[in-house]
Amino acid sequence: MSRIAYVNGRYVPHRDGYVHIEDRGYQFADGCYEVVAISGDTFVDAGLHLKRLRRSLDALKIAFPMTDAALTVVMRELARRNMIREGFVYLQITRGVAPRDFAFPAKVKPSLVMTARTKTLIDPRLLSDGIKVITIPDIRWGRPDIKSVALLPNALGKEQAKQAGAVEAWQFDRDGNVTEGTSSNAWIVTKACEVVTRKANTDILNGVTRLGLLHVIAEAGLRFVERPFSVAEAKSAPEALQTSSTNFVLSVVRIDDTPIGDGKPGPVGQKLAKLYADYAASGAQDRT
Amino acid sequence: MSRIAYVNGRYVPHRDGYVHIEDRGYQFADGCYEVVAISGDTFVDAGLHLKRLRRSLDALKIAFPMTDAALTVVMRELARRNMIREGFVYLQITRGVAPRDFAFPAKVKPSLVMTARTKTLIDPRLLSDGIKVITIPDIRWGRPDIKSVALLPNALGKEQAKQAGAVEAWQFDRDGNVTEGTSSNAWIVTKACEVVTRKANTDILNGVTRLGLLHVIAEAGLRFVERPFSVAEAKSAPEALQTSSTNFVLSVVRIDDTPIGDGKPGPVGQKLAKLYADYAASGAQDRT
Repeated sequence: MSRIAYVNGRYVPHRDGYVHIEDRGYQFADGCYEVVAISGDTFVDAGLHLKRLRRSLDALKIAFPMTDAALTVVMRELARRNMIREGFVYLQITRGVAPRDFAFPAKVKPSLVMTARTKTLIDPRLLSDGIKVITIPDIRWGRPDIKSVALLPNALGKEQAKQAGAVEAWQFDRDGNVTEGTSSNAWIVTKACEVVTRKANTDILNGVTRLGLLHVIAEAGLRFVERPFSVAEAKSAPEALQTSSTNFVLSVVRIDDTPIGDGKPGPVGQKLAKLYADYAASGAQDRT
Repeated sequence: MSRIAYVNGRYVPHRDGYVHIEDRGYQFADGCYEVVAISGDTFVDAGLHLKRLRRSLDALKIAFPMTDAALTVVMRELARRNMIREGFVYLQITRGVAPRDFAFPAKVKPSLVMTARTKTLIDPRLLSDGIKVITIPDIRWGRPDIKSVALLPNALGKEQAKQAGAVEAWQFDRDGNVTEGTSSNAWIVTKACEVVTRKANTDILNGVTRLGLLHVIAEAGLRFVERPFSVAEAKSAPEALQTSSTNFVLSVVRIDDTPIGDGKPGPVGQKLAKLYADYAASGAQDRT
């Protein structure tokens, strides 16, 4: 079976999915996106993803191409046509096609592209071994809270991690505090057993998995605090974690050359990974 | 006659120019570009543009899709097919098409798209009236010296200028110093008749027109200095200018609500616009 994509109103074979060379997404990174995990018959926290998508579009003054209900229909249909039981759907909306000019075109219809892919969301090896991250300066633009496709610095950071044999790069600001990974949020667990992650303002993307995990932590009666933490604090923390929509919760067992704790996933991280997996599979919020 | 574009090896009607939805230019802004003015039978400073393009590609570790000589053949052919006597050619090179993943794909062939358009490079009205600019904080990523297509902040800035009835937005850094316009370099003329523009390091794009004008200034025996200047200094300067590949040299006669000098293009700006126009038309460096 060949993969199917949704491109501006049509379901087409993935290999035939094309957009115009003057789509502003191609020439100006003038668009935004979401990645929603599919777990069985659940789109994990689809409501939060669509809410954030609308927030990004509002921030960029891009028209919403269709209602949330209609978008959900397309997401469902795409998951069905691609027979996805575990994986994700990728949605991209750009300002649309117009003769190249930096300022917004007067009349333009937003472009909507959607793809879907099968993927193991909970990778047993990553879960049991944990992952290595490197740290790099955060050189992204001033509004990473907008989930835009201007992802060049993120791609460069991820490649740098890969070259270093790591899975992710944690970015740090001018004060030496961790902002977030290139495609994940960063967390630590303190000696006092508090779970810590940076407050979501305009400096980071407010991850949907981040929000889900905060919910899970509160439900479990664990303590958490939203505050910045430095690279140094992270390296000396008993545990470190990352969250993302397509890998859920993973323990970070090495930051640069420093093992975290005893270099293996710790108990809090393992517990949270388990609790979040249950939460995601429960379909508490969003059923397909 | 319909416009013709060059897309990955083929000359196609502009309206039929398409790239794949998983072109990394579309999903990650993972590419760079150049805009080269066409003046009669001259590609203005094509050599410098191609040199900068190669520099951007090297910085992003994107393979060069063809030699400079071959690129020049395509540029010529595109200008010919579109019958451009005055206008520009736009070149975009991205890392290529690959299944979506932040890190670089192992094997990938860069995408090359080229378009051409007729445009008045020296607009008599803009030249005689000068232009208005606004000032905005520079929120771009840390490497604006790479001419990448991650132009979302530039597009937002230009739109903000347009909404304010201005032509351009000059961006300023944390120290209040002007970095550059969203698609132009910024200049002032001091009371001592020195022409001032910021030194090109990683904070700004080293404009080809900027380099051309520095050459012209030196040839004319005028004094210039490369140093930062603040928004406040610019507002109190006798003259201000901007340079760009498709508008050459323009006098800035208003910054935010402050008229520059007597609110009309000054003598140094007018002289430089004239000298640069002659330089561009001379084809001293690059003939088609």
